[in-house]
Amino acid sequence: MLAEIITIGDEILIGQIVDTNSVFISKELNKIGIQVYQITSVQDEKEHILRALDLAKGKVDLVLVTGGLGPTKDDITKETFLEFFDDKLVESQMVLDTIKTIFKERVQRDPLPANLLQAMVPSKATILTNRHGTAPGMWLQKDNTVFVSMPGVPYEMKGLMMHEVLPRIVSKFSTPFIYHKTLLTYGKGESQIERIIADWDAQLPSDIKLAYLPSLGKVRLRLSSKGPDEQKLIRAVDSQMDQLHGLLDDIAIGYEDETSIQERISILLQKKRQTLSLAESCTGGAITEEITKFAGSSVYFKGSIVPYATELKTSILGVDADLIKANNVVSIPVAETMAIQANKLFETDYALATTGIAGPEKGDGADEVGTVCIAIAGPNGVVSEKFSFGYLRERVIAKATNKAFELLLKEILKN
Amino acid sequence: MLAEIITIGDEILIGQIVDTNSVFISKELNKIGIQVYQITSVQDEKEHILRALDLAKGKVDLVLVTGGLGPTKDDITKETFLEFFDDKLVESQMVLDTIKTIFKERVQRDPLPANLLQAMVPSKATILTNRHGTAPGMWLQKDNTVFVSMPGVPYEMKGLMMHEVLPRIVSKFSTPFIYHKTLLTYGKGESQIERIIADWDAQLPSDIKLAYLPSLGKVRLRLSSKGPDEQKLIRAVDSQMDQLHGLLDDIAIGYEDETSIQERISILLQKKRQTLSLAESCTGGAITEEITKFAGSSVYFKGSIVPYATELKTSILGVDADLIKANNVVSIPVAETMAIQANKLFETDYALATTGIAGPEKGDGADEVGTVCIAIAGPNGVVSEKFSFGYLRERVIAKATNKAFELLLKEILKN
Repeated sequence: MLAEIITIGDEILIGQIVDTNSVFISKELNKIGIQVYQITSVQDEKEHILRALDLAKGKVDLVLVTGGLGPTKDDITKETFLEFFDDKLVESQMVLDTIKTIFKERVQRDPLPANLLQAMVPSKATILTNRHGTAPGMWLQKDNTVFVSMPGVPYEMKGLMMHEVLPRIVSKFSTPFIYHKTLLTYGKGESQIERIIADWDAQLPSDIKLAYLPSLGKVRLRLSSKGPDEQKLIRAVDSQMDQLHGLLDDIAIGYEDETSIQERISILLQKKRQTLSLAESCTGGAITEEITKFAGSSVYFKGSIVPYATELKTSILGVDADLIKANNVVSIPVAETMAIQANKLFETDYALATTGIAGPEKGDGADEVGTVCIAIAGPNGVVSEKFSFGYLRERVIAKATNKAFELLLKEILKN
Repeated sequence: MLAEIITIGDEILIGQIVDTNSVFISKELNKIGIQVYQITSVQDEKEHILRALDLAKGKVDLVLVTGGLGPTKDDITKETFLEFFDDKLVESQMVLDTIKTIFKERVQRDPLPANLLQAMVPSKATILTNRHGTAPGMWLQKDNTVFVSMPGVPYEMKGLMMHEVLPRIVSKFSTPFIYHKTLLTYGKGESQIERIIADWDAQLPSDIKLAYLPSLGKVRLRLSSKGPDEQKLIRAVDSQMDQLHGLLDDIAIGYEDETSIQERISILLQKKRQTLSLAESCTGGAITEEITKFAGSSVYFKGSIVPYATELKTSILGVDADLIKANNVVSIPVAETMAIQANKLFETDYALATTGIAGPEKGDGADEVGTVCIAIAGPNGVVSEKFSFGYLRERVIAKATNKAFELLLKEILKN
């Protein structure tokens, strides 16, 4: 059971947008045991789309197409589908009603002729209701391959996937189970890890696949397997993962399967009814943004200060100016005091502070670009550490953010 | 002159990572006038990679491959290249030296055998020096198509593209110019815009292409054209864009070609030697993160407070508790006071404040989910506005962030 994702749109091919639709669709297909064979991004051009549909048809059972549906005339997906399925357009009363309802309730004006044209659909298509927009999804079949077309607007596509496409796939196809388990490690490179786990790797059964995913100070090790018996599959992968985890115990921080590190922190703090605040200097709001993007964060997260200019560490956070002068703004004493002061200001149980030099300029710090101090003040006192995160701004911020969550989780787990 | 990007890696196909490499490569190719015909993401599997290389060879002049190069054994790109080019491995002294230098200077230990194996390269390949890692780039040719292979680690790939691949492409191929200009509009949907510009669209020369790119409260309108004469191309597109801009003057906020709205704000504030602070409640650090990710932001950006819990708007920002009680925490008076107080605390010229309900819970606000108040306090006093940004958390935060930058830019431009 293989699937291909085809995304249509010149905006992807000129690098104007990041194709996050494919990421979402791949994840969801994986969860129900369907392997994505290929992701193909093609131009808004009929011949090209036809070629992609045709090549996919020969290889996979399911083709999910996104993009190229919308009210304006540069959309040619529908036209291409008519040719590919040798079909003609008919008006769908259901889509017409949806369009009128959406305009009445959300847009508060009458639909334009271009909007009403979206009710014209291929006669052979099963129409999939789009709860968030006026372009419907379409489900068609040619020989043994199913083709599904969805609009490219991410939240419209997501609604269609969850409520219409996935339930239909599950009921139509009998799919194997796919199971992944990913171990997250910090502190060693992939070659070093390979050497440590060489003997274990040599005995790994051929139906369990190992992949290394290195990035920004962490290496993720993914085990994957598929088969008809879900319980057997989970047991086999989990047992191998336990051995792997044992070999890498000093650098492993946990699994990256269902919950992210932010979600684990959220769950723990909510359970303990404890609260968190931040004083982010060099990370400039990146940690705060990672926390608040999850719904429910307001239960445990009270707030942040980003004292980007050095003098604000004194005027707002109350870090003694002499302490900064004596130790340098990027230093363990300053980071620790920032964390302690944040706990006082926000009346929280835990406070995390960062101070560092993201670069490319050295700023007010005397250290090299990439130097970052992270401190956490909590019920067990203050812990802190100084790091060197390289010379590229974007990576310094990302590595410091990753490290901050890692240290915070360890600290919360102590209690 | 067409190119295809092939990204190798199961991690993309299971949705574990977002393929940002393709975005970068597409953008860079476009700048030098090379059209990306297709982006194809394939499995870590020899037969599949061979099929993709073969299909690309029939269609394009240049194939850029990323991923599947690295020190661990799950990498099969090199093996696949040997078969595709009917080649054998030889040791490259240059790569060997690079690996030893990198280990000596950055890793501070001896390379492992797996690292040294990366110096074995196809004999027909021109080796491209990777300044940031141990896996070299490779440049090979088959019939009339050039194939370039780069590691998948983004900053290694970027270094190779900028210093090795792009200069070689420019010197080898004579390429047409491609010119895009994108108008950014806020406040009207694509159907409405289509009706307003219908007459202009009807007269648009066939060699200039119009695309609508709607997202999160904005619609971008992109004009594209290509040809051998760069000056003529720019004149033709600019002239059409001027007419389009004139028709949409009330909703257009500028062009999205070289500089983002954050960069425009940065340039203006630095030029005027003015400063900015933020008080972000419902946007939870998202605006701060967008500002600080750009190098040089510390020149004009002094800091932020994220008073996520309502009581902190009083205790840290100094918003009168009675004002909050009388007006509701999500209200124009509270947003305006937050902005005024932020200017005082941070001693800045401009302060932007957000308060709202990102959802899915209503929290401390009495309004519906999606209600957001944005206020800006600056040299001309305080401006503010109340918005409804729908019912999906991620979109509420993103729309509020976009709108905040839009309002801030307008306010700065007043002076």
